[in-house]
Amino acid sequence: MLHSKININRLEKNLKDLSAVGKNDKGGIDRALGSEADREARKWLMAYWDKNLELPVKTDAIANMWVERAGIEGIAPIVIGSHHDTVPNGGMYDGALGVLLATELVQILEENNVTTRHPIAIVSFTGEEPNPFNVSTLGSRVVSGRVGKEELLGIKNIEDGTTLKDCIEKIGGDLEKIQDALIKTGDISAFIECHIEQGRRLVDANQAVASVNCIIGIYRENITIIGDANHAGTTVMRDRQDALLGACELNLAFEKILKDLESDEVVGTIGYLSVFPNAANIIPGEVELVLEIRTCEPQIKEDIVRKLSIEAEKIMKNRGVKIIRKVNLDQREMPMDETVMKAINKGIESIGEPVRELVSMAGHDAANMQRVTQSGMIFVQSIDGKSHCPTEKTHIKDIEKVGNAMLEALLILDRELD
Amino acid sequence: MLHSKININRLEKNLKDLSAVGKNDKGGIDRALGSEADREARKWLMAYWDKNLELPVKTDAIANMWVERAGIEGIAPIVIGSHHDTVPNGGMYDGALGVLLATELVQILEENNVTTRHPIAIVSFTGEEPNPFNVSTLGSRVVSGRVGKEELLGIKNIEDGTTLKDCIEKIGGDLEKIQDALIKTGDISAFIECHIEQGRRLVDANQAVASVNCIIGIYRENITIIGDANHAGTTVMRDRQDALLGACELNLAFEKILKDLESDEVVGTIGYLSVFPNAANIIPGEVELVLEIRTCEPQIKEDIVRKLSIEAEKIMKNRGVKIIRKVNLDQREMPMDETVMKAINKGIESIGEPVRELVSMAGHDAANMQRVTQSGMIFVQSIDGKSHCPTEKTHIKDIEKVGNAMLEALLILDRELD
Repeated sequence: MLHSKININRLEKNLKDLSAVGKNDKGGIDRALGSEADREARKWLMAYWDKNLELPVKTDAIANMWVERAGIEGIAPIVIGSHHDTVPNGGMYDGALGVLLATELVQILEENNVTTRHPIAIVSFTGEEPNPFNVSTLGSRVVSGRVGKEELLGIKNIEDGTTLKDCIEKIGGDLEKIQDALIKTGDISAFIECHIEQGRRLVDANQAVASVNCIIGIYRENITIIGDANHAGTTVMRDRQDALLGACELNLAFEKILKDLESDEVVGTIGYLSVFPNAANIIPGEVELVLEIRTCEPQIKEDIVRKLSIEAEKIMKNRGVKIIRKVNLDQREMPMDETVMKAINKGIESIGEPVRELVSMAGHDAANMQRVTQSGMIFVQSIDGKSHCPTEKTHIKDIEKVGNAMLEALLILDRELD
Repeated sequence: MLHSKININRLEKNLKDLSAVGKNDKGGIDRALGSEADREARKWLMAYWDKNLELPVKTDAIANMWVERAGIEGIAPIVIGSHHDTVPNGGMYDGALGVLLATELVQILEENNVTTRHPIAIVSFTGEEPNPFNVSTLGSRVVSGRVGKEELLGIKNIEDGTTLKDCIEKIGGDLEKIQDALIKTGDISAFIECHIEQGRRLVDANQAVASVNCIIGIYRENITIIGDANHAGTTVMRDRQDALLGACELNLAFEKILKDLESDEVVGTIGYLSVFPNAANIIPGEVELVLEIRTCEPQIKEDIVRKLSIEAEKIMKNRGVKIIRKVNLDQREMPMDETVMKAINKGIESIGEPVRELVSMAGHDAANMQRVTQSGMIFVQSIDGKSHCPTEKTHIKDIEKVGNAMLEALLILDRELD
């Protein structure tokens, strides 16, 4: 059994060095899929791996980068990693921590001459964050077979019209050969991803780390509310069918349904809302909005949708507006693998921290990887729950904890899995 | 005393003919300030006046068009008219009716060889409707001295960046000579404008016409609501500062304040609302909206604003959001002239209709004209209260009534005024 610990100073330096790539003048990081900073970050990682691990990097057809340290048995690798891209004006931990911690784990194994039964591979996935190609967790989505060549070849950047094909070529992939990137059952023994929590549950409980038991399901409706776009002066109050007021009632009713559940593991949001014609002197005639529900329990989602329908009926009746609802996403929750979770929990116990299991309220590459191999995640506390912003931060002592817990979990899996 | 009546068939034909100018494929009329259709409508009117009245047209520096039939005394003219521009996809009565009825009145005087003490002038004002130069009732605003040369020279089209100067030149005006367009006290004896009501008060009362006792005051606030734009998945319900939910509460509270007044002559609307960043997976961090109140009673407006402040305080406290309010318009109500109103009421009596006085809930050129001469308005019923849309319509029998009532009012004023 290994009693080595990770080199936290080295990991801290690597986090800092990589964070300079794409740093903007607001203190945030712009490292979107296919950007110049994406390419630079890839170069940085490849140069680091080459220099410090002396292992070859394999870039697959969707431009995910893989580095593999050999094991002593002829079995499939255990993969660890995350992604190196960021949201616009994002932070330095979301994604990068998972990749650099995976790197640190392999480096510490190497330094200590630790042999493992399984090869241990590092992965940095392509385009995990939402981006103007409208496809998130792109790299893991492709390798898990959730999206095929034809669909990928049709994708364009909604902002500038450039193709995903050109974008992927620029970063070393090739959509024409996407079939080669598919991971088949048995290709990988297990996958573990370390990620910041991005919420307040750990900070509120004063805990450093947790294992993830389920990655949230995401349900979205496009809702159109149709009223009557009359003159805001000449239409008396009692004659109005104001689409925006209908939307306001719906949003508040939706919030009440959610709050009444008194749960920290189900959330609902209307984040997108547009008014037509959107002029100060015209009563809103139409509103388009996107309503989102996130939960790991399909029954709770159904229950919210049912209650929402009752509220929508009331609003239509009372206000004389029409409410047209269309499901545009119903992505099921993804429970994490029991064996991997147990190993992560033991890793957390091994560093003297309490075992805590959390639902991941955000999507992650691990949800796709769970489709092709047994997968798990380990969360580390986000200070103030902040993420996707320049002030995203994690205490270095907590990074040390999550690193040593993950190292232990990795070695447990290496012993236990075939 | 004249016992002639207007020629309703001719007026009906003229309304139909002018409505072809700028007609779009949705059945509406696109005749915005400075558009090709604006220029065509001007040509149509000038050709009609030239052919049927044989009177010269004077186009002033803001491109208002004036036609004057001589009186027999050396006194200032009584002016009648309205505007010929429309909102995008507007109707065929808003504005055009006032100009064509004024034309019909002069034509009928001419045909019947009726001499008047005052010259009777027709005016068709420039750019009465809201437009991308962000200045409505432009022509009457300029002649009444509400906006000066420097300000006008700085105005640009917010959609395409072109200048108001170029626009006005294209339609026959010249912003450099704007001083010449000013109307001084004594230049005009009185002003009467006929317009569709654009609301449901006449249709609900089954009445054809009304005189206007006051043109509504318009008060607008730009309101910014600042919350916290967090991750819509990882931020639990109780930790949110959702700016949109704050805006929803404010809008519903505002509606309740208005409805509790149980008045048809005070209205309030949030017609413009934008959400930032406006993404399905991000809690709205900021909302910008425009709130409008219309009333002829400043005290009622103050009262609404006071109640709104109480509600805004509650929302800030309960939701942890900031609400920043800034008055961007506080245009006072404009009571119409008593003498002109009395003449209009007598005109209405003369056709056997009940006298009804209404507040105009929309702004009109007459509000500007009241600043420089005694002014009044006569309203005619809008079917279903519709306006600013292709289905805007007025019964032809009601147009005949308003025409004859206005003819009578004009002759009364001609007799009574010096």
